[in-house]
Amino acid sequence: MADKLTGACIFGQSGGPTSVINASAYGVIKTALEAPEITQVYGCAHGIVGVLNETLYDLGQEDPFELELLMNTPSSELGSSRYKLSDEKDIARIHEVFEKYNVRYFFYNGGNDSMDTCQKVNDYLARVGYECHVIGVPKTIDNDLCGTDHCPGYGSAAKYIATTVAEIYKDARVYNTGTITIVEIMGRHAGWLAGAAALAGIVGLAPDYIYFPELTFDMETFLRDVEATYNAKNNCIVAVSEGIHYDDGGFVSQSKVSTTDGFGHAQLGGTAAKLAAIVKQKTGAKVRGIELSLLQRCAAHLASQTDIDEAFLAGKTAVESALAGNTGKMVAFVRENANGSYKCGITLQPLSICANNEKKVPREWINESGTNVTQEFIDYALPLIQGERSFKIENGLPRFARLKKIPVIK
Amino acid sequence: MADKLTGACIFGQSGGPTSVINASAYGVIKTALEAPEITQVYGCAHGIVGVLNETLYDLGQEDPFELELLMNTPSSELGSSRYKLSDEKDIARIHEVFEKYNVRYFFYNGGNDSMDTCQKVNDYLARVGYECHVIGVPKTIDNDLCGTDHCPGYGSAAKYIATTVAEIYKDARVYNTGTITIVEIMGRHAGWLAGAAALAGIVGLAPDYIYFPELTFDMETFLRDVEATYNAKNNCIVAVSEGIHYDDGGFVSQSKVSTTDGFGHAQLGGTAAKLAAIVKQKTGAKVRGIELSLLQRCAAHLASQTDIDEAFLAGKTAVESALAGNTGKMVAFVRENANGSYKCGITLQPLSICANNEKKVPREWINESGTNVTQEFIDYALPLIQGERSFKIENGLPRFARLKKIPVIK
Repeated sequence: MADKLTGACIFGQSGGPTSVINASAYGVIKTALEAPEITQVYGCAHGIVGVLNETLYDLGQEDPFELELLMNTPSSELGSSRYKLSDEKDIARIHEVFEKYNVRYFFYNGGNDSMDTCQKVNDYLARVGYECHVIGVPKTIDNDLCGTDHCPGYGSAAKYIATTVAEIYKDARVYNTGTITIVEIMGRHAGWLAGAAALAGIVGLAPDYIYFPELTFDMETFLRDVEATYNAKNNCIVAVSEGIHYDDGGFVSQSKVSTTDGFGHAQLGGTAAKLAAIVKQKTGAKVRGIELSLLQRCAAHLASQTDIDEAFLAGKTAVESALAGNTGKMVAFVRENANGSYKCGITLQPLSICANNEKKVPREWINESGTNVTQEFIDYALPLIQGERSFKIENGLPRFARLKKIPVIK
Repeated sequence: MADKLTGACIFGQSGGPTSVINASAYGVIKTALEAPEITQVYGCAHGIVGVLNETLYDLGQEDPFELELLMNTPSSELGSSRYKLSDEKDIARIHEVFEKYNVRYFFYNGGNDSMDTCQKVNDYLARVGYECHVIGVPKTIDNDLCGTDHCPGYGSAAKYIATTVAEIYKDARVYNTGTITIVEIMGRHAGWLAGAAALAGIVGLAPDYIYFPELTFDMETFLRDVEATYNAKNNCIVAVSEGIHYDDGGFVSQSKVSTTDGFGHAQLGGTAAKLAAIVKQKTGAKVRGIELSLLQRCAAHLASQTDIDEAFLAGKTAVESALAGNTGKMVAFVRENANGSYKCGITLQPLSICANNEKKVPREWINESGTNVTQEFIDYALPLIQGERSFKIENGLPRFARLKKIPVIK
């Protein structure tokens, strides 16, 4: 494989957005624009769909000032998709587009489904002998990506959740009448985000119980625990994953029959509202259900500086690794604890171990009763929420990037 | 009335909390602790209820470092209540407690119901000839308090709403499949908070429509507008007040039959979820309902520096005014526009014009179709969300005040 492969690159964003996915974009775009081997830096609109339908933006024409604002702009600036490559025809089409624009570098930012896309593209191109370096850049607030210690996007979502739970804790103790508060947190099959609620305990404001999608939810035990705590303290705060489910796998929200996204995942939501109604009926207490909803993944104003820096580094490393001749890899983090303090190292992993797998919270990081995390979880997650970024403000509001997104003429 | 009335003071917090109500508390407590005429500074637990049941804290024993952290601690640190004075017996009891502790200054921080409490106490004490200076400190995220240009708490809630709507705007445009997003905002009878969603337009991220509780909600027009915008732009973002209602006064959330609080207000919520279901059925689009919920009133991490400063000033002024011999007044803000720039002046208003009235958004500050604000609203609200406070962080999370709350021996 040539060290000095010269040609264009395409960068795309896929799957659910995060607060820092655009920091990775900036890492890729900036590094690619500075690389002499990369002749053009294209962004594809809405992930792989933009390759298939040839909707490419010429990112070399963007204002560097606006590009830098990507460091604190939430959501996927180029647009995302959940499109799953249907068959070889799709991949042949990608090959066709790559040939047309002499694309020799492909950087794709996403979760496990996106790494599957990367692998299919990489394998196909290798098979047909089209030289192109394909590197995946990890991203997911859920932190369920295998092959990496943790994932860009998780730290900021965790910081948002912990901060918000701390603020809700204060608010929920205002009245003398007593309340039960149920906070619903994202995370379909992995409880990394739900567990992050426990980080509020660092400032003395932890929830009383946390329920994880890794374990079976038992309504009776839940009601008994919540009622006991409420009776003892006149207050109870509960964090629940949206993915909590009964023994038979049925989600507590019972929304599994609703619209599904392109990958067949159930669209959840409404767990907190549902539990609140049940708890209210059982206890007679004032009960409030709060769904943190989209804010977990788009509250860039509360992003973790550690997460932003690492997201940028992941993007930058993807380009540098590809330029060094790597392909079929995902950028990954390795935790290098030096003298007990957190240090994030970086490596490459084969796409195969990242694609389509889900990393769960280890059982031993959840306490015996299954209603809280252990110290190991705290030690793991706490370093990831450190640091606050002072970002560009305009009239008291965050000023996000405004890209021109100039389409490439087909 | 003596200028140099000497005795203890009681400070209490009432009604719904805000992100900055404790900044007012700090303004009162700090100024009172420094005043030689004030012999003791007591806080009453859960507002007037703490006076009635004699649960007082000796705030003079608090660590000054912790007291200063009140400047960025959300929720009512002394506890709040929605207790409405039932009759003369209650007020006679308050008088009894005031006599017992030689309370000569009473500062009460709340909304219009709390100003009613202040007035009743003040009138009674004057009638029985017990000399005591009663000053109300305004507070409400709803901004519906009469007699003041705006109210401490509103600016921070408005900043939270505008920032969040801007972030949701970015997130809602991620996919190529199109979405409709409905954001539910607090404000039972006044649309000041709902209107604040329009401030996101300053950074180019305004919602498409805003619906106000001041106007009658028409479901047909709403569905027609939202569908037209969705069809034209493949996206539509709507901000709705929780208090939107039909022609007959019935809330759209139809929750008016649920539990009511002590003042007979309906407990609302669920408007976004309800509208989302209806819009989904009508359009077939992907629709998401988001209830901003408690975060609007407790997200101190996003408080407006202007609001914090003014909240502190309101508390400080209450004490200074009382020491100067005033009673039966509420501290109020006057807007002094100097050369087109915002300046907040301060004055005293009779409690009578503040108590039990609600200030609505003027009809002329809402556009003709009733679905957005006018420039006058923007000019009014924008100065109030300016400035970001760098607050004390511990391990990546906000470090809130931890008061000892040492009870006074009865």
